[in-house]
Amino acid sequence: MPSNFRPVALHHASRLVNHGPTVLVTSAHGGRRNVMAAAWSMPVEFTPPRIAVVIDKKTWTRELVVAAGGFGLCLPGTGLVDVTHAVGQSSGREHDKFSAFGIAAAAGPVLGMPIVESGCAAWLECRLIREPHTEDAYDTCFGEVVAAAADPRVFADGHWSFRDDNAELQTIHHLGGGQFVRPGGVLHAVPPQAGG
Amino acid sequence: MPSNFRPVALHHASRLVNHGPTVLVTSAHGGRRNVMAAAWSMPVEFTPPRIAVVIDKKTWTRELVVAAGGFGLCLPGTGLVDVTHAVGQSSGREHDKFSAFGIAAAAGPVLGMPIVESGCAAWLECRLIREPHTEDAYDTCFGEVVAAAADPRVFADGHWSFRDDNAELQTIHHLGGGQFVRPGGVLHAVPPQAGG
Repeated sequence: MPSNFRPVALHHASRLVNHGPTVLVTSAHGGRRNVMAAAWSMPVEFTPPRIAVVIDKKTWTRELVVAAGGFGLCLPGTGLVDVTHAVGQSSGREHDKFSAFGIAAAAGPVLGMPIVESGCAAWLECRLIREPHTEDAYDTCFGEVVAAAADPRVFADGHWSFRDDNAELQTIHHLGGGQFVRPGGVLHAVPPQAGG
Repeated sequence: MPSNFRPVALHHASRLVNHGPTVLVTSAHGGRRNVMAAAWSMPVEFTPPRIAVVIDKKTWTRELVVAAGGFGLCLPGTGLVDVTHAVGQSSGREHDKFSAFGIAAAAGPVLGMPIVESGCAAWLECRLIREPHTEDAYDTCFGEVVAAAADPRVFADGHWSFRDDNAELQTIHHLGGGQFVRPGGVLHAVPPQAGG
């Protein structure tokens, strides 16, 4: 599988998830691996680049993430909407969801977490920052981004570019119940006149 | 100002921010109030409805939120993109940003936090759940949603509906640098055939 992906500078990593895309959370430990979907993630710091993601304590992913001390976040494009919803509906405890759903993954460059490029817009490899209380009380896991890359057709030089000719690579945003929305028109803020 | 807003059931509150909209964080305490923009928020639990939002410890908003024990999250529509960017660029410590930028606010029903309906799609009023370590280490503040409402032209019965005739009320999603994207086409996930 030839990769078009290019590294994303770590100080631009927060831009990848700034607009709220649904992500695939990947994990691997002891010869096993898993992938699930998560609509609930956000950056929490630019430098060092840190993110938070909600991973339910009952999931197989959570076990693998804690055991491995890391996880991957892969941003599925619109072409993967069905797969994204499906991997969020079943557990990988009994079977390998990558194989079951035909998801091609490679080992991330720093932590060896599974990273998915085919059909994805970008990925981030993250080292888990252990916060047992927050993980327990809110299922919220913090991570530091240690590597990131994106398909330059949709993200380059720290900027997203959503166009008619890259619709398949555009991020998806879960509205709930298997309904997703993709990015629409771009709006450029202009400083308003402050009155009063 | 007549309001079209209707209450949102608390078990549907997470849907309001599930797709990653940029929000206005509002606060009030001791006769003073403030509003800032935040791209970094996410739900962390359906029931009880809880969210996390990143509020920099250096901000005036953070001081007010901790003092009041609560905050508002208001979801600006596309018509407020300039104002949203502007309130994220200046501090309200020296002047009232609601007045400066012509933002009409009322007192929320449970905590009295400022809520903005004109130009917004929805709002949530949240009680701060004190987590001093997480607030300090990651600027991440947890809150429990105690009231929520939405304009039924864009969110009703727990579902978003983005259409040509409600463009002004659609959520905005910050890409960085004052560029926002609004929702585009909706994608309905279909269960794929699991093979292999």
